[in-house]
Amino acid sequence: MNKKLRIGVLGPHDCSKDEAALGFAVGVEIARRDAILVCGGLGGIMTSAAEGAKSRKGLTVGLLPGDKASDANPFIDVALPTGLGAVRNALIVRACDAVIAIRGGYGTLSEIAFALRLKVPVVGLQTWNVVQNGKVDPGIHVAKTPEEAVEMALRLATRAG
Amino acid sequence: MNKKLRIGVLGPHDCSKDEAALGFAVGVEIARRDAILVCGGLGGIMTSAAEGAKSRKGLTVGLLPGDKASDANPFIDVALPTGLGAVRNALIVRACDAVIAIRGGYGTLSEIAFALRLKVPVVGLQTWNVVQNGKVDPGIHVAKTPEEAVEMALRLATRAG
Amino acid sequence: MNKKLRIGVLGPHDCSKDEAALGFAVGVEIARRDAILVCGGLGGIMTSAAEGAKSRKGLTVGLLPGDKASDANPFIDVALPTGLGAVRNALIVRACDAVIAIRGGYGTLSEIAFALRLKVPVVGLQTWNVVQNGKVDPGIHVAKTPEEAVEMALRLATRAG
Amino acid sequence: MNKKLRIGVLGPHDCSKDEAALGFAVGVEIARRDAILVCGGLGGIMTSAAEGAKSRKGLTVGLLPGDKASDANPFIDVALPTGLGAVRNALIVRACDAVIAIRGGYGTLSEIAFALRLKVPVVGLQTWNVVQNGKVDPGIHVAKTPEEAVEMALRLATRAG
Repeated sequence: MNKKLRIGVLGPHDCSKDEAALGFAVGVEIARRDAILVCGGLGGIMTSAAEGAKSRKGLTVGLLPGDKASDANPFIDVALPTGLGAVRNALIVRACDAVIAIRGGYGTLSEIAFALRLKVPVVGLQTWNVVQNGKVDPGIHVAKTPEEAVEMALRLATRAG
Repeated sequence: MNKKLRIGVLGPHDCSKDEAALGFAVGVEIARRDAILVCGGLGGIMTSAAEGAKSRKGLTVGLLPGDKASDANPFIDVALPTGLGAVRNALIVRACDAVIAIRGGYGTLSEIAFALRLKVPVVGLQTWNVVQNGKVDPGIHVAKTPEEAVEMALRLATRAG
Repeated sequence: MNKKLRIGVLGPHDCSKDEAALGFAVGVEIARRDAILVCGGLGGIMTSAAEGAKSRKGLTVGLLPGDKASDANPFIDVALPTGLGAVRNALIVRACDAVIAIRGGYGTLSEIAFALRLKVPVVGLQTWNVVQNGKVDPGIHVAKTPEEAVEMALRLATRAG
Repeated sequence: MNKKLRIGVLGPHDCSKDEAALGFAVGVEIARRDAILVCGGLGGIMTSAAEGAKSRKGLTVGLLPGDKASDANPFIDVALPTGLGAVRNALIVRACDAVIAIRGGYGTLSEIAFALRLKVPVVGLQTWNVVQNGKVDPGIHVAKTPEEAVEMALRLATRAG
C-alpha cells in the first residue's frame, strides 16, 4: 500500500501578512499534490499553511508542544499533544519525509538543524542560512516560490524514501 | 470546529488470533463512532485494530518507535516515526483523549501507567491490574466487550476533554 | 575504568515521615556502597533519599521535569532540567542500572512499568504490584528493608550490566 | 546551597588533533573553574573535553544517545543512557547553564540551534554561524581561545541563572 508523503511546514507562530500568504500557498500546494501536511499545530505560519491545505481538502497533522489538543488551530485534523515543550520541534522533523522552512526565528532554525542532522531533506523559503568556514552550507535547498518549494520537497522526499 | 476524538489502542505486537479479533472489533467500533484511531503503528493488536478501523473507512495514526515510516503496518494512514524507542509509548498516550488496553505485556503496562499518571482515561479489556496495599486500583475502567470498551472510552474522553 | 553503578530511587513527591525515613535509609545505603543516586530531583522521597546519600558524601543526580535547575532539592549535586514533563520519568529509569521504588502513586507506577519494559531491574519497597490473569507478576523484586533493597538492586544491576 | 554550574561542551565525535586539543583545553578550564562538564559522552571532542576535565579532577556527565552506559568514554563519571537517539542533543543543551560549541557538523548545529531556542547561552569556538537576511545572527558569542570560551560561558551562565 502506498502511503501518502508527509511534508512538514516550519515557520514562526507570529507572522506578517506576507509570510501568512506564503504559508497558505505552501499548504494549498501540499494538498493539491496529495501529501499530508505536518506542522506544530499552533498559530502564524502553522495556521495559514493548515488553512491552505484544508482549502483543498488536504489532511493536516499538528504535533503540539503542550498537553492539550485544544491548543491546536482550527485547521488541524489530527491534533497530537506531546507535552515535550520545545523538544517537539525535533519530533516534527523526525515525523516527515521532507520539510519546508519559511522565514522563522530560532525555533525554525532548530527544526532546520535537526532536519540536516537526521537527513530529512529541507527546503528553505526566505529562511536561515547556516555557514561554516565562511561558506554557506548546501544542505538547505533554496526555493523561490511556494510552488517550487513543494515541488522540491516532494522530489527530495521521494528520492530519500 | 469540533475535532474528532483520538482513541488510543494499546496491546502486544505479538498476539493470538483471539486477541487480534478483539483488536479488530475495537478498531471497527472506533471508526464507526467517527473517532481517530491512534496506536504504535506496528504489528499484532496494532495491525488488527488499524485493519478494523480501515474496514469502516476510519482514520488511523501510528506513532512509531523507530526512524522509518516504512515500519508501519499497511493499515496506518499517518505513519509518524519518532526515533524515541520505548519512550514513544508515553507519547502515544499523551496524544490521545482516552486509551483502550487489550491484554499486553510490559510495553502495554507502561502505557497504562503513563495514562494513569497523565490523567488520560484508560479502559482495560482483559489486561493488567495494578494493586497497592492489597487493593486493585480503580483507575483502569474494565470493559467486557470491544463495543463496551469503545463506548466507555468515548464517554470518558468527552468528560475529560 | 570501572564506572560507579547508578541506582534510581523512585517515590512520591509528597511523603509521610515514615516514607521519608525509608528514603533516607535507602540513600545512605546507596552512598555507603559507593553507587550514584539518581532520582527526579524534587521533594518527598527524592529529597530524603538525596539527603541520606549526601550524609555519606555520595553523589546525587536529579533529572527534573521542568526547565530550571533551581527546582532541584538542596541535596542534588547534578541538577539536570529536561523540560520533558512526565516523560522524564522514563528517562530516570533509562539512565539507571537498577531502580528502587518506595510506595508511590501513578508517577512511581509509570517508572516501575518503564523499568520492566526496558529490562532495568526494579526492587520494590512497600510499593505497587502488577497483576495479570490473577497472578502477581514476578518482575518487581520485593525487599523488606532499605538495606535489603539496595543490596538487591546492586546485585541485580551487576548481573544485568 | 550553591550548586555548581553545568557547562556543556558540543562538538564532533570524529575530530582532528587540533580540535581534540581545543576540547581538552576547554575541559581543563571548566574543571579549574569548578564547574561540571556536561556532554554527549561519546568520542572525539566529547572524549578530549572530558579527559581535560578529569586531569583537573572535575566532574563529568555524559548524556548518551543509546541504551548502554558502556558506550560512554572512559572520562565520563556519570554516564546517563537516554535511549532517545538524536533527540538527546536537545536534552544536553536543556541540561546546561551555558554551552560551548567547538567546530562540529550538523549534530553540533542542532545543539547550537536548540540552545538559541531555549535561551541557553551559547559560545562558539571556530564553529557555525547562522545567518538571516544576509546578517550573521548575534546569538552565538564568539570566543578566540578555550580559556576565553569558558570565561564567557561562565559569565553568561551566571547572568542568565
